[in-house]
Amino acid sequence: MSINQQSYAYGAQKSSIREIAAYGARRKAQIGAQNVFDFSLGNPSVPAPEEVRESIQRNLSLPPTELHGYTPAAGYPATRKAVADSLNRRFGTSYGTDELYMTCGAAASINIVLNAVVNPGDEVIVISPYFPEYRVWIESAGATCVEVPADPATFQIDPDAIGRAVGDRTKALIVNSPNNPVGSVYSLQNLEDLAAVLRDREAALGTSVYLIADEPYREITYGAEVPWVPDVYDRTLVCYSYSKSLSLPGERIGWVLVPTTNPDHDELLPAVAGSGRKLGFVCAPSLFQRVVADCVDVPSNVEAYASNREALTSGLSRLGYEYIEPQGAFYLWVKALEPDAKAFFLKAREQELLPVPSDSFGCTGWVRVGYCVSHETIVGSMPAWERLAGEYAR
Amino acid sequence: MSINQQSYAYGAQKSSIREIAAYGARRKAQIGAQNVFDFSLGNPSVPAPEEVRESIQRNLSLPPTELHGYTPAAGYPATRKAVADSLNRRFGTSYGTDELYMTCGAAASINIVLNAVVNPGDEVIVISPYFPEYRVWIESAGATCVEVPADPATFQIDPDAIGRAVGDRTKALIVNSPNNPVGSVYSLQNLEDLAAVLRDREAALGTSVYLIADEPYREITYGAEVPWVPDVYDRTLVCYSYSKSLSLPGERIGWVLVPTTNPDHDELLPAVAGSGRKLGFVCAPSLFQRVVADCVDVPSNVEAYASNREALTSGLSRLGYEYIEPQGAFYLWVKALEPDAKAFFLKAREQELLPVPSDSFGCTGWVRVGYCVSHETIVGSMPAWERLAGEYAR
Repeated sequence: MSINQQSYAYGAQKSSIREIAAYGARRKAQIGAQNVFDFSLGNPSVPAPEEVRESIQRNLSLPPTELHGYTPAAGYPATRKAVADSLNRRFGTSYGTDELYMTCGAAASINIVLNAVVNPGDEVIVISPYFPEYRVWIESAGATCVEVPADPATFQIDPDAIGRAVGDRTKALIVNSPNNPVGSVYSLQNLEDLAAVLRDREAALGTSVYLIADEPYREITYGAEVPWVPDVYDRTLVCYSYSKSLSLPGERIGWVLVPTTNPDHDELLPAVAGSGRKLGFVCAPSLFQRVVADCVDVPSNVEAYASNREALTSGLSRLGYEYIEPQGAFYLWVKALEPDAKAFFLKAREQELLPVPSDSFGCTGWVRVGYCVSHETIVGSMPAWERLAGEYAR
Repeated sequence: MSINQQSYAYGAQKSSIREIAAYGARRKAQIGAQNVFDFSLGNPSVPAPEEVRESIQRNLSLPPTELHGYTPAAGYPATRKAVADSLNRRFGTSYGTDELYMTCGAAASINIVLNAVVNPGDEVIVISPYFPEYRVWIESAGATCVEVPADPATFQIDPDAIGRAVGDRTKALIVNSPNNPVGSVYSLQNLEDLAAVLRDREAALGTSVYLIADEPYREITYGAEVPWVPDVYDRTLVCYSYSKSLSLPGERIGWVLVPTTNPDHDELLPAVAGSGRKLGFVCAPSLFQRVVADCVDVPSNVEAYASNREALTSGLSRLGYEYIEPQGAFYLWVKALEPDAKAFFLKAREQELLPVPSDSFGCTGWVRVGYCVSHETIVGSMPAWERLAGEYAR
């Protein structure tokens, strides 16, 4: 084949999460939607807030050439100012319009940052279990994806393990908190320990290591504080998306923050712009840039996810399942009832339960149960979870 | 610098077109908008049709999780079917839903196709003068951009020159008709001659050469027929955008067509999907996918551009300027009054005229005058064009 092999492979080998979801859709058509318990996807079940509809409605009265025209590559100044002001109110920072670069969602944000900082042959560290698309984007940027396991007991970052993994080719580390797939939130102490290790390694090696904070779940928490990473480590870039907080995953809208407190800001900002340009992004969707300006402080509806979380954890707990108590996001990390997560998944599937085996996230022995589903799905699934546990009790 | 040099360079060296537009904005603030004649950008001056507003309005009554949720990576089946049906009606083809892949606009379409087909070290041919971002995308895909001049008299493709340029590393050729910056439309005969040359070279070299038809201006024509390229050459992929036809440049919505008549279709389709995945596109904006399904057959308002074209060509003609009669798009390719286009641009700028010197498009001696501006701008600019001609007559 003379075309690009890597692109072909990424297209031919579908994401295993999407394959499970596709199986779920087929199965629902066979036996009825109410009889299949599909926990595979991260598509928010909470509707976008009414303010989004109102904002679109209001903006429709603008002249169309203004509403739908090209925006500056970095985004409308008014949108970037609204985002900066919101961050400044929440974190006591003093970011300006020019520190923000609007993007077509989190995937764009992370890919733009990766292509801004890495050179072929570099290494980028991810903390396993991790969102599997990280590997796709790291490898397509020409770098090597280095997996460092989280602490197996707490699923916090293991700073010593990171210290051992950082070498002279390490360019960046992706930190995703609240975490997909585990639901953990890294504590301030944990991040400070990580930052100390990174600074030590940078000094020892004479290199720069960037911390890429991927934070689409920042607003989806259950009481936990999510530390502001640029306060802890200077060489941070923050990637954000409104897919989860405003339930707009299909609209592709988010941002990258390159804080002036990052010592390499003056080089990073043009590199981020140039990376967006070379990847073909041009600008973030114009109408939704205006929606973001209007809705930047609209609170996320966490109550629905909190209620799902309570029903799922109390139900599974009663049945004897072990899991990591989620502090954020909308995933429950449940211990498989046998060491082989794929075998456990197949047994679950016989009961019409569709979680995602942990092999997809770079480790074994667990499944991810997404609870961004209807409350009825969670309640209705409990007899199936009970039968599944019964299979293993025999 | 340890970050990515190529990304930094693409961000630090702004597009010269954008720099001229930025100068225009500053100058308007200084001396009044009505005194500056900015012909630099390709931002449509015609508003999006009323049907777009109506479609958004109608779709706002959908449940938000449905309206703003993730779509399949290739796009909503209903949108792809609407596009395929429209193409089939117009070109007598029989494309199906699966031959279309929805994208975030033309830049995404071209970049996805380039990253689907090229391998590092390959060559991609462009016909100069050409849209300068082609070079950025070709080089960032790891290929070499090979410029082949258009026929200097007609600005049609020069098939013999293409034949000489195609070597064993040639992977693709980008054809942009109606053309930016010249406004030419390649005739059926011209494309057939090109196709014959490409097939000869493929046979001689034992390689495959893809024709990437970049067609955002297909709907903006002044009587000329725009041949359907896949009918002329099998190894064609078509890139489209609604930026110009529906005046939606900021919303980032378009598509790639991988026809089953392309002999490599079975490999190209997954490669296009994998390329979109690795570049971080996820899906095209969901609301505007629905707008496209609703508005796919809404005619473009060509009359406004036709009236601008008439005022500009008749006015410049009277003043003795030479230009290429535009058959499509909304640019006039005007011969500079001295061989050095940049020097001519500087003299034009003294008269508050802001065309783009042809050096930006890979050749010298011309300027591009974008007439996607208000009619008043064109009429009001004539005394300045007259003074400019007078400068050279002295």
